[in-house]
Amino acid sequence: MHALVFDGQLQLAATYPAPMLQPGEALIRPHLVGICSTDIQITRGYKGFHGVLGHEFVGTVVECGAQEWVGRRVVGEINAACFCCPACLRGDASHCPQRTTLGIDRRDGAMAELFSLPVPCLHEVPPSVSDAQAVFVEPLAAALEIVEQCHIRPNERVAVIGDGKLGLLCAQVLRLTGCELVVIGRHPERWATLEALGIPAESEEHVIARRGERAFDVVVDCTGNAGGIQTARRLVRPRGRLVLKSTYSGDSSLDLSRLVVDEVQIIGSRCGPFAPALRLLERGLVDVESLIAARFMLDDATTAFDASRGRLKILLEV
Amino acid sequence: MHALVFDGQLQLAATYPAPMLQPGEALIRPHLVGICSTDIQITRGYKGFHGVLGHEFVGTVVECGAQEWVGRRVVGEINAACFCCPACLRGDASHCPQRTTLGIDRRDGAMAELFSLPVPCLHEVPPSVSDAQAVFVEPLAAALEIVEQCHIRPNERVAVIGDGKLGLLCAQVLRLTGCELVVIGRHPERWATLEALGIPAESEEHVIARRGERAFDVVVDCTGNAGGIQTARRLVRPRGRLVLKSTYSGDSSLDLSRLVVDEVQIIGSRCGPFAPALRLLERGLVDVESLIAARFMLDDATTAFDASRGRLKILLEV
Repeated sequence: MHALVFDGQLQLAATYPAPMLQPGEALIRPHLVGICSTDIQITRGYKGFHGVLGHEFVGTVVECGAQEWVGRRVVGEINAACFCCPACLRGDASHCPQRTTLGIDRRDGAMAELFSLPVPCLHEVPPSVSDAQAVFVEPLAAALEIVEQCHIRPNERVAVIGDGKLGLLCAQVLRLTGCELVVIGRHPERWATLEALGIPAESEEHVIARRGERAFDVVVDCTGNAGGIQTARRLVRPRGRLVLKSTYSGDSSLDLSRLVVDEVQIIGSRCGPFAPALRLLERGLVDVESLIAARFMLDDATTAFDASRGRLKILLEV
Repeated sequence: MHALVFDGQLQLAATYPAPMLQPGEALIRPHLVGICSTDIQITRGYKGFHGVLGHEFVGTVVECGAQEWVGRRVVGEINAACFCCPACLRGDASHCPQRTTLGIDRRDGAMAELFSLPVPCLHEVPPSVSDAQAVFVEPLAAALEIVEQCHIRPNERVAVIGDGKLGLLCAQVLRLTGCELVVIGRHPERWATLEALGIPAESEEHVIARRGERAFDVVVDCTGNAGGIQTARRLVRPRGRLVLKSTYSGDSSLDLSRLVVDEVQIIGSRCGPFAPALRLLERGLVDVESLIAARFMLDDATTAFDASRGRLKILLEV
């Protein structure tokens, strides 16, 4: 089958072996697959992953032991857990130490004509949610993980640092809490979309000039780089919360004594719940389609990767 | 008056000027003052503080505009806040940006014949609580800040790293939650006291050999040094909580991406609530007197500081 493979370099394979159906799994034919910043990072060596890329998808189940799934349009959680260890049994399947991760860690991803996921990972897409919306369920769920982990009060001041794909989704989710919200970014050309949703966006310098330092109850770092945590520390108030969504290579330097004195909380935040992401899309409460920058065919995937630098969401049609 | 002063070097002053009563404050004659690790750190340059040391005390109010306080035996919160700024008005007086801190930041401390604190900082000591117990209210309150900030569930596994003064107090507070608890330390000679309270204590190597890494739901770092966070990260499970009680100079290096992937929370934790600390002492639920290593007279305070290295609590009698 055709598949986009990273094996030290990124290439479209024409005769990649199709997956075999495993017990408890489903074979899925993807319709659309999104290119995520993590995919780009993998092509730079992140996680040392070799295999088929892609973990944001919407597709149709074409083969499955549980017959009722065949023919259904689905999205899927990306962590294929064992579903029986202590972590899984306390509800932390996305932290299962035995897990493989779709297109990220020891499991071929969705940028292919066919791929496989365990049945418990699947979520059926309601008819009113289009493919172009459903392909955003995985990153939207990651944004929802913030409110799954933290009680964001309607009266709080919240700053999202980063106006990339994830930052814009996090801002849309946080907007729904009623909180006072600002996005801090470097791409003014993207801010009109935010402002149409009633979310102001500013540069870091402007926000600090207008509000001063330590002015926010909650700061969410979606920069995807090591500088984000430093900006976040400047902005968060004593006893405030700092949510980290960024993954990148290398250690960061942090004044932990200052963290103790200010009693700041740092909350690492990764994959999130799919069912509420589908509900938000069904209810029309988030606008994901404005994030689509371009669509490419799977066979043009390497061009699509080249085109994705510095842009919002690129989708691959399979 | 006699006072223990740090002005670049530690010395007992015989003619230090006694404080004048300020509006809204009380003049206090201390009975006992504890030497805290923070005091030792100040003598090494922490916070750049010059003045009278000491912030753990029990004493008697000798002069106060609010007459009803005169003659009462008190302990006192160490942050002298403005009590009218946004931080104070949301209940965060200990984070007031205008605050001075007793014996730590721009306010002379309690290692003197007389010192001053705002009336809202004072808490009367119940008759059943001795001076030797009451002098521990400040660090015991700091230990209670953990359970003020975090819901520690009775079924959780909790590790306290550090068997110093603060570690032993934190362990005693956490013991009351019913959680499965272990203290990780380097001073086996202190462990009998813990074991008498039903709290096992072990070396880091033993705990990891027996439990493996990532085995704890909550890890509290009371080491007072930069190594504590590294041990804590080894011990805490994905989605676990890591409470930092240590303050020391300099930045620490941390793999923040790993924190995101593991969705670990880091919680800075400092000063805590005095009223529950007094209630625990009144109810006999914590044993603080076993932490007393020695008592010295105020006039022997410099000797006392020299003697405090590597020992549990040293008290000064004024």
